[in-house]
Amino acid sequence: MSRKKTGLIFICSFIFSLNLSAQNKLSQYVDPIIGSDAHGHVFVGANVPFGAVQLGPTNIFEGWDWCSGYHYSSNTIVGFTHTHLSGTGIGDLNDVLVMPATGKVQLDKGTKTDQKNGYVSTFSHANEIAKPGYYSVILDKYKIKAELTASERVGFHRYTFPAKQDNPHVMLDLSDGIGWDKPVETYIKQVNSTTLVGYRLSTGWAKDQRLYFAVKLSQPLSSMSLYDSTQVTKGMEGKGRKMKAVLNFKAIAQNVLQMKVGISPVSYENALANITAEIPAWDFAKVVASADVKWNKELAKIQIEGSKETKKVFYTALYHTMIAPTLFNDANGDYRGTDKKVYHKPGFDNYTTFSLWDTYRAFHPLYTIIHPDKVSDIISSFLAIYKQQGKLPVWHLMGNETNTMIGYHAVPIIADAYLKGYRNYDVELAYQAIKNSAMQKEDGIEYAQKLKYIPADKVNEAVAKGLEYAIDDWCIARMAKAMHKEEDYVYFSKRAKLYAEYFDPQVEFMRGKLADGSWRKPFDPVASKHREDDYTEGNAWQYTWLVPQDPEGLIHLFGGEAGFTRKLDSLFSISSVVEAGGSPDISGLIGQYAQGNEPNHHTPYLYAYAGKPWKTAQVVRQITDSLYTSKPDGLCGNEDLGQMSSWYVFSALGFYPVNPANGEYVFGSPLVDHAVINLPGAKKFELKVIGNSPKNKYIQKAILNGKPYTKNYLRHAAIVAGGELTLYMGDQPSATWGVNLEDRPKSAGAK
Amino acid sequence: MSRKKTGLIFICSFIFSLNLSAQNKLSQYVDPIIGSDAHGHVFVGANVPFGAVQLGPTNIFEGWDWCSGYHYSSNTIVGFTHTHLSGTGIGDLNDVLVMPATGKVQLDKGTKTDQKNGYVSTFSHANEIAKPGYYSVILDKYKIKAELTASERVGFHRYTFPAKQDNPHVMLDLSDGIGWDKPVETYIKQVNSTTLVGYRLSTGWAKDQRLYFAVKLSQPLSSMSLYDSTQVTKGMEGKGRKMKAVLNFKAIAQNVLQMKVGISPVSYENALANITAEIPAWDFAKVVASADVKWNKELAKIQIEGSKETKKVFYTALYHTMIAPTLFNDANGDYRGTDKKVYHKPGFDNYTTFSLWDTYRAFHPLYTIIHPDKVSDIISSFLAIYKQQGKLPVWHLMGNETNTMIGYHAVPIIADAYLKGYRNYDVELAYQAIKNSAMQKEDGIEYAQKLKYIPADKVNEAVAKGLEYAIDDWCIARMAKAMHKEEDYVYFSKRAKLYAEYFDPQVEFMRGKLADGSWRKPFDPVASKHREDDYTEGNAWQYTWLVPQDPEGLIHLFGGEAGFTRKLDSLFSISSVVEAGGSPDISGLIGQYAQGNEPNHHTPYLYAYAGKPWKTAQVVRQITDSLYTSKPDGLCGNEDLGQMSSWYVFSALGFYPVNPANGEYVFGSPLVDHAVINLPGAKKFELKVIGNSPKNKYIQKAILNGKPYTKNYLRHAAIVAGGELTLYMGDQPSATWGVNLEDRPKSAGAK
Repeated sequence: MSRKKTGLIFICSFIFSLNLSAQNKLSQYVDPIIGSDAHGHVFVGANVPFGAVQLGPTNIFEGWDWCSGYHYSSNTIVGFTHTHLSGTGIGDLNDVLVMPATGKVQLDKGTKTDQKNGYVSTFSHANEIAKPGYYSVILDKYKIKAELTASERVGFHRYTFPAKQDNPHVMLDLSDGIGWDKPVETYIKQVNSTTLVGYRLSTGWAKDQRLYFAVKLSQPLSSMSLYDSTQVTKGMEGKGRKMKAVLNFKAIAQNVLQMKVGISPVSYENALANITAEIPAWDFAKVVASADVKWNKELAKIQIEGSKETKKVFYTALYHTMIAPTLFNDANGDYRGTDKKVYHKPGFDNYTTFSLWDTYRAFHPLYTIIHPDKVSDIISSFLAIYKQQGKLPVWHLMGNETNTMIGYHAVPIIADAYLKGYRNYDVELAYQAIKNSAMQKEDGIEYAQKLKYIPADKVNEAVAKGLEYAIDDWCIARMAKAMHKEEDYVYFSKRAKLYAEYFDPQVEFMRGKLADGSWRKPFDPVASKHREDDYTEGNAWQYTWLVPQDPEGLIHLFGGEAGFTRKLDSLFSISSVVEAGGSPDISGLIGQYAQGNEPNHHTPYLYAYAGKPWKTAQVVRQITDSLYTSKPDGLCGNEDLGQMSSWYVFSALGFYPVNPANGEYVFGSPLVDHAVINLPGAKKFELKVIGNSPKNKYIQKAILNGKPYTKNYLRHAAIVAGGELTLYMGDQPSATWGVNLEDRPKSAGAK
Repeated sequence: MSRKKTGLIFICSFIFSLNLSAQNKLSQYVDPIIGSDAHGHVFVGANVPFGAVQLGPTNIFEGWDWCSGYHYSSNTIVGFTHTHLSGTGIGDLNDVLVMPATGKVQLDKGTKTDQKNGYVSTFSHANEIAKPGYYSVILDKYKIKAELTASERVGFHRYTFPAKQDNPHVMLDLSDGIGWDKPVETYIKQVNSTTLVGYRLSTGWAKDQRLYFAVKLSQPLSSMSLYDSTQVTKGMEGKGRKMKAVLNFKAIAQNVLQMKVGISPVSYENALANITAEIPAWDFAKVVASADVKWNKELAKIQIEGSKETKKVFYTALYHTMIAPTLFNDANGDYRGTDKKVYHKPGFDNYTTFSLWDTYRAFHPLYTIIHPDKVSDIISSFLAIYKQQGKLPVWHLMGNETNTMIGYHAVPIIADAYLKGYRNYDVELAYQAIKNSAMQKEDGIEYAQKLKYIPADKVNEAVAKGLEYAIDDWCIARMAKAMHKEEDYVYFSKRAKLYAEYFDPQVEFMRGKLADGSWRKPFDPVASKHREDDYTEGNAWQYTWLVPQDPEGLIHLFGGEAGFTRKLDSLFSISSVVEAGGSPDISGLIGQYAQGNEPNHHTPYLYAYAGKPWKTAQVVRQITDSLYTSKPDGLCGNEDLGQMSSWYVFSALGFYPVNPANGEYVFGSPLVDHAVINLPGAKKFELKVIGNSPKNKYIQKAILNGKPYTKNYLRHAAIVAGGELTLYMGDQPSATWGVNLEDRPKSAGAK
């Protein structure tokens, strides 16, 4: 498979053997509104897969649930902006706000505080259309219909003004970001009557954000007024902390004003060039159609049959796995590094928006199946960051390390890719980088280096860190072994076993151990204090299972299958009451199992390691039936840039990567009746599910490529080779299928 | 002076000898918008002085600056509600939201989260009128003109619909409170086609709020739909957590719909009776005029001459001193106590909304001058609370003790009133209550009881508590002495001196002293950690001066006048940089002096005790000139229910009650050119300021009732006796006036 050298990554390097007629377009099943209510925090607006631009409406910010700028409970729009996060627990971005308007220019004088949401309009969901690559809404206040679409690096606006226009104008506002984001320096310059350029330097969750932009207008403006806060400034350009420009038009020709806004991490010259490269013409409908084609190409990588509801939830989930990572370069390949230097022609597409603590679990394994063309570029982006900031990314955003969450989870992603045969990056550098991650002298990693547990009275969130590090270390060991670094293999294999240090056999929970060797008291397995206890956004019930790299070892700690199974049953059946003041991320509860947060995600599949696959099937169906719906509040916790949806995509297909890097997918209970995973080179992996129904949730037998298949897991190699798997479902647990010791999944992973 | 026995307290018990013609109506100078931007947090809407109803617009809640429900930076209105706080640092209330609308009923289905601000409309300040007792605005979304006015317990709405009406209706919404307030149980019942009743029980800052209401419509509704969240419920009544009613009208007669909404803390029967008692007719203009008369009667208690700007700032400040306390009873005198029992005919007007940590300093002393009819009722309300909850109020709201802030500051208010001759309450009970306050065994008070300092490693905010308690204890001593309780006098006088325990002569600051007698290290006099250090919303620079009960003693700690003056000069001249993460209440800085928070307020006047009255004049003029303006952001910190404005009212008149209970007002520098304080019985105290100007800020000499007056303070008795004071101003400090030891103010107070 060849890697493209240009920035235009959406010219897919393999062609699907599909008929993408309007009728069976899969984008019809996607509803971007799903997850925009409750705490899903998804982006709503127009973008293309992995696009640098997410062009969408921004509400008045009302708190945590506005991390993406939009929440379904709001009826306000302050403008349309070009960058948004999707599903995070912290808000940021919101660059280059555009708001069309009529009437008097609304910038209040007489007060030091500028009007925060001066152009805000209400809207109604009844007047709103959201679909992949297209968003439209009617602004109540101005009676303007706003339509948005996008290419990778350009937002395209079409505003239909009312027939009678009173002082039509457009507000271009660089002041307010979402939540945490504040402007540092902003700049607007009018180049000519149809072109403006500028930049917005801001600080927020990501400390040093630099976004350059260029605006092209479909008709000449009649005049422009520049404001810094509420002070009007003279001339054709202005620099200040909160620059705004009012673009005035004598009249809007045929009532339709169009705008193209290119963005760039490098320069406004590049932003202009991005417009020329991606959307040279003024054909709005064509760009909408092109965005739809891009989405359908990606969505068609998995074709499923199932109920309409399943299809809506599934394809929206699949769509949500492609909002991030986002391109962080220009059409010509230029990008700005974490060191703030500009890099030309690096030979890969540079990406950003990496929420690795979340996404290493299932999102990146999914990419190794359906986005083989992205995997190496993502690792190359990691390695560039490594060279620029001295360590692999943790939670990387717009060329900034935010150091959010715990662990060094670039490691499992790199190891998984390597072990699955991906090599199109500097392999030796990659190994050096992952090993360096594990040799940092901070955050308790120094204890793991001495093969010791992390004392809970010395290090915050010690248990969660100890458990996550052991997972990452297992991955290093495996990569070391594959690279014939035997000494490292032995050393990191020992570190991978350190999870056992946190297990208290008296109470049968993972819990904080103090420097003197005693357990932390008092101990309450449901207690949680957000980011200030021995766990990370969770409690002992939720963290005790976090040993995906060695479930057999965990079973052993419980004294064997019986004790392990009993305790795991309790997890799903005890009261869901969590302590007041606990982490808000503990959500989507079944018993004390929290689907709403990531460290839990593999847990339902652990029954398989104890020879009880039907129990996994029961729980997985309970989760898919009750915690994923097609309603606006259809996600039970933060989407977290695709991990919550990746869990669903895998689980709906019937299997899940418990171990994030051993190439083994453990069976659960498929929701689909039929699925085709389209692979490069016209290969396909076909899944047939016979007799599936809400009651028939238990796998009875399997046929793989014509032969009986008794393993309770599927190998990555078997999928990507193409082939056909048939699963036969029944309404009773099978006493034999997948149960025998030799058929259970293994920590060591498939060969 | 006789105390009225009815709830209608605004029939003033003395008549002013004034001509209240339209031309010289003082309400013309009031701009309720002042203080609604930045962090003033004032209420904007229609009310009468001390009214239980504050009927005004509520914006979408965007955070701390929306404590009152309205912030100038917002352009949204979610509805008009009947209760609002003014100037607090915590949000609450927002009962009985009314929103007129046209078009489709907007209650979204298909999601568990109800649309929070479903009827939100934008508005423009250009279409907004706010004046005492009247508020109007045009709702952009519906083209409806909303006008509001009020009596004490009734809100009066007038909505002018557009000529072409599409499904005119009114949303009556009991769901969302402001910020902290959440509904517990709500109820709506249609009694007949023009009458509805109900209640809203909610919890927030005040834990158990019970508000009953009645609605009268000017025309019959055609139908009503009831909703609990988004589920429509059948019938004429409904109970639920978040009840909403849609009131439908076939057409709005003459396009004008009027509504009267009575509220009651007792029952909806009483709420209905309040409407009958206060606004029996449908004459909106008459109620507006009546509210204006009520405001003008109160405002006319102080008539000033000065610049237009001074008048605007002064009368708006005076207006802000009469938003709270608020009536918490019915027109028939009934009220609901802190014990939730209903009390009938208690013999006084029961009040709520007491922010005593703020208001004991200058607000209540101001009341002893201009609201003699209120003082005893306020104390009677305190004593009722004492009987019902076992202690005097701390921060009391809607029949709930919130226990916000520190100290037992009902004490100075009661002592000041007693010492000034107010007796119309149970005096022995009052003394028992204030003494009990000082004998509580908590919050470090137990250390003061043993005549010991409060150890900073045992009690949070130990220094602030120690200083505030010493002030309160001084007041108890003085009241004890006046009541011939000699033993208590001696004991509490000792406690009043405990402030000196916190003074470290090495660094010359008040600072935290640990249980072992050592000072807390490290020490940084500008450091502050909001509500988690040795101070309360302040730092060592700000708290070191908090000895208003004994400035001579404080001067002594500094080794005398020279050292004291030098340090006080530094306060106003050093850098205003405060530590990042410090208290947001540290605002309005001049040096490290913070006009934005109350513990500082007396500080500029301390120069007088060291014989440097001109330095007080300089600082006071700097504050009044730079930190109080007539713009929306004209307040430099939370208004705090009148204390921020009381400081201005006193300072503009030229004097200030440094000691909150010794009947002595220390001179500063008058802003007014002339003032008349109108007193009961047609008495007046007239202030003439000769030669006043921005440059002529120094008092040169004074004539009181025809005789030379050399004291640098004015006695309360001299003011309330009526009389005439002439101050002669000059542009240079006077070397003689008010400087001599015998002319300086004294801790002991005026006899």
